[in-house]
Amino acid sequence: MEAHPPIRTVGIVGAGLVGSGWSVIFALSGLHVRIYDADAGIRAQAITLISRSMREMADVGLADGIDEALSRITVCDSLASAIQEADYVQESVFERRDVKAEAAAQIGALIRPGAVVGSSSSGIPASAFTETAPLRERFLIVHPVNPPHVVPVVELVPAPWTDPALVPRVRSFMKSVGQAPVVLTREIEGFLLNRLQGALLNEAFALLEDGYASAADIDTTVSKGLGLRWCFMGPFETIDLNAPGGLDDYASRLEPLYRTVAHSRTQVRGWSLDLIERANKERRDLLPKAELPTRRAWRDRVLMHLVKHLRGAGL
Amino acid sequence: MEAHPPIRTVGIVGAGLVGSGWSVIFALSGLHVRIYDADAGIRAQAITLISRSMREMADVGLADGIDEALSRITVCDSLASAIQEADYVQESVFERRDVKAEAAAQIGALIRPGAVVGSSSSGIPASAFTETAPLRERFLIVHPVNPPHVVPVVELVPAPWTDPALVPRVRSFMKSVGQAPVVLTREIEGFLLNRLQGALLNEAFALLEDGYASAADIDTTVSKGLGLRWCFMGPFETIDLNAPGGLDDYASRLEPLYRTVAHSRTQVRGWSLDLIERANKERRDLLPKAELPTRRAWRDRVLMHLVKHLRGAGL
Repeated sequence: MEAHPPIRTVGIVGAGLVGSGWSVIFALSGLHVRIYDADAGIRAQAITLISRSMREMADVGLADGIDEALSRITVCDSLASAIQEADYVQESVFERRDVKAEAAAQIGALIRPGAVVGSSSSGIPASAFTETAPLRERFLIVHPVNPPHVVPVVELVPAPWTDPALVPRVRSFMKSVGQAPVVLTREIEGFLLNRLQGALLNEAFALLEDGYASAADIDTTVSKGLGLRWCFMGPFETIDLNAPGGLDDYASRLEPLYRTVAHSRTQVRGWSLDLIERANKERRDLLPKAELPTRRAWRDRVLMHLVKHLRGAGL
Repeated sequence: MEAHPPIRTVGIVGAGLVGSGWSVIFALSGLHVRIYDADAGIRAQAITLISRSMREMADVGLADGIDEALSRITVCDSLASAIQEADYVQESVFERRDVKAEAAAQIGALIRPGAVVGSSSSGIPASAFTETAPLRERFLIVHPVNPPHVVPVVELVPAPWTDPALVPRVRSFMKSVGQAPVVLTREIEGFLLNRLQGALLNEAFALLEDGYASAADIDTTVSKGLGLRWCFMGPFETIDLNAPGGLDDYASRLEPLYRTVAHSRTQVRGWSLDLIERANKERRDLLPKAELPTRRAWRDRVLMHLVKHLRGAGL
């Protein structure tokens, strides 16, 4: 059996919000982080963004040793300098197939043969942009949720030609840096997270379209109901605990209802422009467009305090 | 305009877990609570169950004034004694249409004409069991989530013959006792909450059936990802904050993906017995059946601490 050297140096390709978040995670975990972004302006701001995120985490009690962590980060002037010595590369360039394909080709030509490349792609599968890349068997999707340094889940999705041995290795690596990795056995559009979100959103939009409730009340149904369970138990554990005999007992009682729900949605309507405008108007009445950035900062603060609370409860 | 007297006395019909939870809510809010259950054994244990729930809440800082609250509760030997003077009646009898219909007939014959009757039904609409009840226009669904005194959401669903003036009145009343009411304009199977849950569960079961991921990893995708947002923002606010320009910007980017997800699920498969058994086996490997009650108590404690944390954050 081949022994894998531990991952000590990480290359970050693309240093926007996602790449910066990854840098926070890796540097706080004691790894050396070498950052490259093709945009010199983004390179110049990367450390500022990263240190601000670290300070926000420290304020909440989610991080310490910030100065040491920052000392482990190097912003590089070339892609080669950032990744040629890396044990692991996290690619977070703009999410467009041709941009991802060009990045994969360049990365594959520069990395050591034993390195692993995770792509932050949230929807484009690796097979769509790594087919002709050098060392394409070293690439897989490693999809985080924004902001990556706060929301722990990471989706690992191999392409058909990804070396199968990489998946458990990256899973262990992600756990070692405090993330919560989940593994897909093969590619599917939307992976797990956006498919689950999409199923709920499609039902929410259909209920709104048919006038059963306001968007605000649909939101409350989740935020003051379903979501309170789902932030510490997934859907299967939730139903397992929701009938005296467990999951199969629950299923025998509720499956007919959920089958009816499914049958009522076999005609795909999509989200019409009118429907989107209705939902958007309801949101703008609650929150003017100019206040979106403030509310986003609020969301991130709430998320950090929530994660801190859940960690304190051992979750 | 008719002035509505404030609700001071609540009648509780059915004192199992749901009815007891309602009693906790109302008594802690300063109301007089009169409880009846057809089962003398349940009547005899009601105060024990209620005081235990109140103590658990007090331990977490979610309740005070327990002794005064308990002093406002009376367990009655007859249905008439519990509800004939009540301003509001919460019915939480066993969820079967004939049982609900018999309860509605008896309740309608005993209440004052100005009283309101909320049914805790989680799925059966009021039109299915109040059609021939006396004063049927005074009934509507007021569906809580277990445990009602911890999870705030309550679904209000009028029957076609429900007096429309009751809906805003009950909405205000539920807010006044600390619940988070949502209003459906008319009946639909599963109401909002179980339809939204069902949409997500149907996708989760399909992903499991096709072998894309384990039930545990699907759970993690929610509990370490989607659910962290959904416990303080609903799905519409979540996407509103997830694109620079807000909800319509998000929709223009992601609607095609979610339409594809919908198109991939137009063939309803239901949850086969084999599939249920697979999911159940995965859960039983993680949590033996004998440990379900302990885990349920853990869930309720986590929920109470979570609700306390979110309240502390002003949520």
